[in-house]
Amino acid sequence: MVVSDFFASRWVQRPEHVADDDGGGLPAGFRAGATAAGLKPNGARDVGLLVCDGEDACSAARFTRSGVLAAPVVLTQQHTHLDRLRVVVANSGNANAATGRHGLDEAARVQRAAAVAAGVDADAVAVASTGVIGVPLDGRAIVSALERLGTALHPRGDEEFAQAIMTTDAFEKRAALTVQLPSGPVRLTAQAKGAGMIEPAFATMLCFVQTDAALEPATADLLLGVCVKRSFDRISVDGQLSTNDTAILMCSGSSGVQVAPESEDELRLGEALDALLRMLALLIVRDGEGAKRVGRIVVRGGDAENVERAARAVANSPLVKTALHGADPNWGRIAQAVGAALRDTAPLPLDIAIEGIGVCASGAAVGHDEDALRAAATGLEIDYEVGLPGIGAKTEIFFSDLSHEYVTINAEYTT
Amino acid sequence: MVVSDFFASRWVQRPEHVADDDGGGLPAGFRAGATAAGLKPNGARDVGLLVCDGEDACSAARFTRSGVLAAPVVLTQQHTHLDRLRVVVANSGNANAATGRHGLDEAARVQRAAAVAAGVDADAVAVASTGVIGVPLDGRAIVSALERLGTALHPRGDEEFAQAIMTTDAFEKRAALTVQLPSGPVRLTAQAKGAGMIEPAFATMLCFVQTDAALEPATADLLLGVCVKRSFDRISVDGQLSTNDTAILMCSGSSGVQVAPESEDELRLGEALDALLRMLALLIVRDGEGAKRVGRIVVRGGDAENVERAARAVANSPLVKTALHGADPNWGRIAQAVGAALRDTAPLPLDIAIEGIGVCASGAAVGHDEDALRAAATGLEIDYEVGLPGIGAKTEIFFSDLSHEYVTINAEYTT
Repeated sequence: MVVSDFFASRWVQRPEHVADDDGGGLPAGFRAGATAAGLKPNGARDVGLLVCDGEDACSAARFTRSGVLAAPVVLTQQHTHLDRLRVVVANSGNANAATGRHGLDEAARVQRAAAVAAGVDADAVAVASTGVIGVPLDGRAIVSALERLGTALHPRGDEEFAQAIMTTDAFEKRAALTVQLPSGPVRLTAQAKGAGMIEPAFATMLCFVQTDAALEPATADLLLGVCVKRSFDRISVDGQLSTNDTAILMCSGSSGVQVAPESEDELRLGEALDALLRMLALLIVRDGEGAKRVGRIVVRGGDAENVERAARAVANSPLVKTALHGADPNWGRIAQAVGAALRDTAPLPLDIAIEGIGVCASGAAVGHDEDALRAAATGLEIDYEVGLPGIGAKTEIFFSDLSHEYVTINAEYTT
Repeated sequence: MVVSDFFASRWVQRPEHVADDDGGGLPAGFRAGATAAGLKPNGARDVGLLVCDGEDACSAARFTRSGVLAAPVVLTQQHTHLDRLRVVVANSGNANAATGRHGLDEAARVQRAAAVAAGVDADAVAVASTGVIGVPLDGRAIVSALERLGTALHPRGDEEFAQAIMTTDAFEKRAALTVQLPSGPVRLTAQAKGAGMIEPAFATMLCFVQTDAALEPATADLLLGVCVKRSFDRISVDGQLSTNDTAILMCSGSSGVQVAPESEDELRLGEALDALLRMLALLIVRDGEGAKRVGRIVVRGGDAENVERAARAVANSPLVKTALHGADPNWGRIAQAVGAALRDTAPLPLDIAIEGIGVCASGAAVGHDEDALRAAATGLEIDYEVGLPGIGAKTEIFFSDLSHEYVTINAEYTT
């Protein structure tokens, strides 16, 4: 058991009651598997199936708020019981988005096939897709794959399941944790994907979380909701909300450890889930298409709306992102981005610091150690702080840089 | 006299009563010049002075709405008569933004020196700056340059003036037109700069327009306001509103041609100014840092707020911009951008066409000639059309692509 391989960032602390146990497979009550259905041209795994066998299983889910919802998002939202999901079927290679009635029919066909393979009702099956938008999906290849997968699921299938949902991801985003709760130990695992088209709004690209703790549905929903807001809702690769974002927490209850509402168990499990999702979110940013460096912008002061707008503006500015990439502490671009976000508010006496070095106070440049600043800007994680007039509000966004590789990935190798 | 060298885009028509007369210099009543003050490390021209000698001269101006206003913008807004400007002093190499009280003092020093050089009161002098943000400006070099310039102004100084305001611009943005009004011919010239940090809000980066027509101040203000909204307010290179955007129209009246309010003269002059500013705006996009292709997104339907948000989202999406660069008609990214802009509106039955080829109808992919679409995407000007539910609203944004060169310019060669 490795204590801290997963929490490899100064921005996310491993709670003391949480241990990394990569290799331990899924929590009790879960099985998974994956196979190749031919959706990815390179023949890699592209269909994954995850099944929860717990008798009193419960679940919670969050989805993208895009006006253009992918068919699997619509189907899962409208034709399942989100608090009693038992199965996730996920594919990469095709987002099944902007595919109209045909796309909904194909998503339903995949849902039915997964229900048969897992031996549950169709309304207990969530469907998730990721890949190219606007290409009609032929569900038959997935149906055939599910017929093979149904008998091949196993308790250590989380690794192949995680691989099956990858698209432009450069590395797997997966964790297996043991959480010591006052009432006993439980396990917590998750698989996520995402590298581009990343600025989730109350959800992520795809993230599936499993635990063998026994929760009431309302507790699962509360924990997922709070933790998603503090993790996937606080990242951006390219400012692009996706059509397919889906986050699902499934609880098998198979450990026998009851997590009662408003208990110490709930608090501790929440801390573990919070650290897990924040680290996964950070991994998505770190794997941002072509990314070399990751920035964190913290904005304090003003009001909740202004700090949010300012932080998003900095995180999504191509000028800030190219400067981050070039290890250039060009803080004038941060001032510009904040000014642009908060129009008609001049004069804005903002403060700016990079890696703790103050460079702008009350809206004007301040003298600083330029060599120290330049050296600090060469790190792989860069902290930016902006202070606005007023007190009380605060937010943060983690964001990736903008590199040649991002342009290459998105301009030269798309189809 | 060349008829149409300047209006080299299918998106901007040369009005029949407008002729290109590049080489004709400034309109009657104007003089200009430029020199090198050492603000640009390469020793190129970086200070320009433009003087209007008309007795009944009038003017109008528009500025950035950023919350972080550069010192010259604050000074010009607060300490001049915007309807009676006689002089513009402009520098490149330093934006004099986020420079606090010191920056305001230096801007005022430059203003006073320009007033002396031109023989006018300081409150008739507009100051404009462009360049790096957050670096204190030493106005003394500009003051010395202005002492030399005062005696070196000439009627054909528009070319060197245009050069003095360039920063990352790859080419000059300058026009000299003759406009046949019912009451007689007038001349119309302009100099603009801008290639990065471009998403003006009711202004441009820097644009200076001169005419020898005789206008009332209210007419000048009306014409500039309307034309800026249809030109510089409808472009984006990187979605980044600047701290220094300034557009100034100066009218010397020296032609003796009176342009009365609500007259046919006003209409014709307005048409000419509209075409001029739209073409200049398009040139800024075409010179967008690293740009190879220019897109135009037209959004119809919905309401005014929704078409604006959708069009901005498409124009500023790095996924759309890299696809444009790669000549990839990847319309799924357009659907995604519109969906992200119009959250919580699903299902959104949007229509999408590229170069007139329909690819998405009522939210779903439609069959089309893929070879024809792919061939159309290789042009240098690409038309995107999005239809939203409803009728009545319509807007357009011109935008540049996102290329390796943009990353190089902004990541590797900044200081």
